[in-house]
Amino acid sequence: MDDVNDATSNSGTPPDTAKPATVTACMIIIGNEILSGRTKDKNLGFVAERMSEWGIRLMEARVIPDIEATIVETVNECRAQYDYVFTSGGIGPTHDDITAAAVAKAFGVKIHRHPDALKIMQRQHKPEDLNEARLKMTDVPEGATLIDNPVSGAPGFQIGNVFVMAGVPMIMQAMLEGLRHKLVGGAPVLSRSVRAFLPEGVVAEGLGAIQARYDEIDIGSYPFFRKGRFGTSLVLRGTDEAALDEARGEVEALIRTLGETPVEDPDD
Amino acid sequence: MDDVNDATSNSGTPPDTAKPATVTACMIIIGNEILSGRTKDKNLGFVAERMSEWGIRLMEARVIPDIEATIVETVNECRAQYDYVFTSGGIGPTHDDITAAAVAKAFGVKIHRHPDALKIMQRQHKPEDLNEARLKMTDVPEGATLIDNPVSGAPGFQIGNVFVMAGVPMIMQAMLEGLRHKLVGGAPVLSRSVRAFLPEGVVAEGLGAIQARYDEIDIGSYPFFRKGRFGTSLVLRGTDEAALDEARGEVEALIRTLGETPVEDPDD
Repeated sequence: MDDVNDATSNSGTPPDTAKPATVTACMIIIGNEILSGRTKDKNLGFVAERMSEWGIRLMEARVIPDIEATIVETVNECRAQYDYVFTSGGIGPTHDDITAAAVAKAFGVKIHRHPDALKIMQRQHKPEDLNEARLKMTDVPEGATLIDNPVSGAPGFQIGNVFVMAGVPMIMQAMLEGLRHKLVGGAPVLSRSVRAFLPEGVVAEGLGAIQARYDEIDIGSYPFFRKGRFGTSLVLRGTDEAALDEARGEVEALIRTLGETPVEDPDD
Repeated sequence: MDDVNDATSNSGTPPDTAKPATVTACMIIIGNEILSGRTKDKNLGFVAERMSEWGIRLMEARVIPDIEATIVETVNECRAQYDYVFTSGGIGPTHDDITAAAVAKAFGVKIHRHPDALKIMQRQHKPEDLNEARLKMTDVPEGATLIDNPVSGAPGFQIGNVFVMAGVPMIMQAMLEGLRHKLVGGAPVLSRSVRAFLPEGVVAEGLGAIQARYDEIDIGSYPFFRKGRFGTSLVLRGTDEAALDEARGEVEALIRTLGETPVEDPDD
């Protein structure tokens, strides 16, 4: 686990350069409907993009079913291992919405009716419509603070380093955007992308040699098929802008050596 | 772990009914590009759908980075826990394609150049184009058998209960389809879907009562917003067709009791 407060610099960084620590995160997607194929997850990609922008390294994602023991175990494993844990799914009013109770169990605390959540629900529903199922959405673990839901009212919550959000993408996205100011990221991960109409098998050797010279940069290689030709997108990611530009120069030179023209990749 | 050969019947099943054992699976998606948000995963949904059709319960999915220790640990944890493990990603020719070597390490075996994989690559490439990077794609763990790649040639492989496939969706899908005859599923999971223009908070109580009477059926509830109105899709899943139809009847009766008309859900 990387500690948010541990200012250890990355490998390859000169010792006199103060850099933010690496901040890590894990996403837990909770819901039988994703594992059955009924619903296609759209939350991971969104969280992944925001984490990159905010300087947080998404290190892992897990998709798990609505089974209490599994949620408890996964939350506890992940919150010990990563700086931030984000969950989506299972905070609605029905019998299969068991995330809040499971997270309370993971933290060894009771669940209680949060007064502010109750106020939100009371503003939204007439007293006769505020049945037990809807009231369940105001139950959060003791010690949790609410996460604002500007879309449909019923809030998510934060306890410790775990952020519990809705599964409906529009709501999850709004909740996450609202957390921006609460999350402390490290240096944003920047990227440079170059593509060329060269198969991966042709660029691989030279690319490996470049990667070996830049251990603080992560060079990824992604094949594509466009306009009837095979090609490769090369994506360089890291926090050091100068090193990225230097490495990109080397990748472009490699492509020219192999007889092709490097193109900035518009997709990346 | 459920053993494929363990014919224990599900809960709620009369003891005289012989039912196929529950067969479980886990999907491991390997690749920094998914965790950075650069690439949106399309493989989980496809695998999830096929597993449902083939009577295999997808119990978990994990998205992990191209880090050898993480791949080794995740593969070992998952192959001990589930009947089948499917991986996607990291079997190409570049430096970041480390899945084959990591899976070999997980199984404690060496990697070797598979003669049939070599023949496939020799048919595809002129001798002068068959460089070390491309030859790397013929290296599989000792004891592994090949998984056919009808799209681009370079094969995946199976070792033990682990099926290692490409990350490119078109290739992964073709590989998985080819595995159909190798995988032994249990009873296919069937589903029934009903929707109504009722908010989840209104159906929740009655739905919970129905779920409590059918412990062999998994009833999921998914809110939607369509034609300016809120509604809920109710999805019943299980292997017992008669029980499913009976439970659907109860769900439809519940909807009518609440003053709405149940509609068969075309999306499910």
